[in-house]
Amino acid sequence: METPKRRRSATRARLLEGALEVFAERGFHGASVEDICERAGFTRGAFYSNFGSKDELVLALFQATTDRLLEQISALLPDLANQPGSLLDAVLGLLDDAAPDQRQWHLISTEFTLHALRNADAAKALNEQRAMFREQLTRLVEEITAASNLRLSVPPEQFVRLVMALHEGARSQYLLEPAKVPAGSLEHTFLPMVLETISS
Amino acid sequence: METPKRRRSATRARLLEGALEVFAERGFHGASVEDICERAGFTRGAFYSNFGSKDELVLALFQATTDRLLEQISALLPDLANQPGSLLDAVLGLLDDAAPDQRQWHLISTEFTLHALRNADAAKALNEQRAMFREQLTRLVEEITAASNLRLSVPPEQFVRLVMALHEGARSQYLLEPAKVPAGSLEHTFLPMVLETISS
Repeated sequence: METPKRRRSATRARLLEGALEVFAERGFHGASVEDICERAGFTRGAFYSNFGSKDELVLALFQATTDRLLEQISALLPDLANQPGSLLDAVLGLLDDAAPDQRQWHLISTEFTLHALRNADAAKALNEQRAMFREQLTRLVEEITAASNLRLSVPPEQFVRLVMALHEGARSQYLLEPAKVPAGSLEHTFLPMVLETISS
Repeated sequence: METPKRRRSATRARLLEGALEVFAERGFHGASVEDICERAGFTRGAFYSNFGSKDELVLALFQATTDRLLEQISALLPDLANQPGSLLDAVLGLLDDAAPDQRQWHLISTEFTLHALRNADAAKALNEQRAMFREQLTRLVEEITAASNLRLSVPPEQFVRLVMALHEGARSQYLLEPAKVPAGSLEHTFLPMVLETISS
């Protein structure tokens, strides 16, 4: 039975989905709240009862994407905790699959990051969201290394920062030249080398 | 004595400089040719006698930045060719210094890359420019490894792609959180490990 709460959550989901499409087509700055409502089939009222602003909607997209990723990694843990190498491969695979759509997600997340570099409020909110994600990923790395009796010679958070930085830069190369840089190829080639070097 | 050729080159340089400022403030899409001319103190006629379009001007910025970087790396070669580790450090230092301004350069180069992901002509031109830069960097890596009697276990171009991807992703983290991620810190921590692993 449809409850008001469930309807509200479905409205949010459709707005997020519509926004992702419209942002990918017209860019974060080019897409208006009206465009998003039109795509999702809702009124401005529905939008503003769910999100305070376009920025808030994008942050909800970040949150949904990272939540899904963390859930999927956690689900892998029991099977792979004793094999850090395979776990790394599996996590890298997820990084690619977790985003609703690689290209759309790259466009909107990169654009919002640029927006944040020009807007202090957006930077604060984005940094908080990224910090939460990074902390959760770092905890996972710590759990995995503890379960495997491994010690890392750098702080686990630094390794997580490396994975995130390389993934973002590599995704840009992949999207520009998909035939020359298969998705995940740089990460799969080089991150295991780093993990091996910092593990003992 | 000022020749027409020298005047033309000074005009170009001032237009490039003005464009970099205006792009950083208003974004690639938000900045018009008029804005750029006004900042540089020239007419639209001067602009169009130097550049066919805004895209062409940005590609000239990429060209100028990468030319300067390649020149600076080449200048280091004689002194450092026998010390691949120090050379890597030096090159990483240059990657940061070569850009006219880290933040401005990150904003405009990232924005143009996003533009290229939505526009096939821009993608073609950007990919050509990036390929040239990558090839020249790859040749430098080959010269250095040959001079040091090193063999790499991955194609040198892959290593160059890694450096570029990591540098771009790390720069974004640095600009978002300068106090937490000093410029170049991820590159300086992790790239030497990779170089060590792939060298023999």
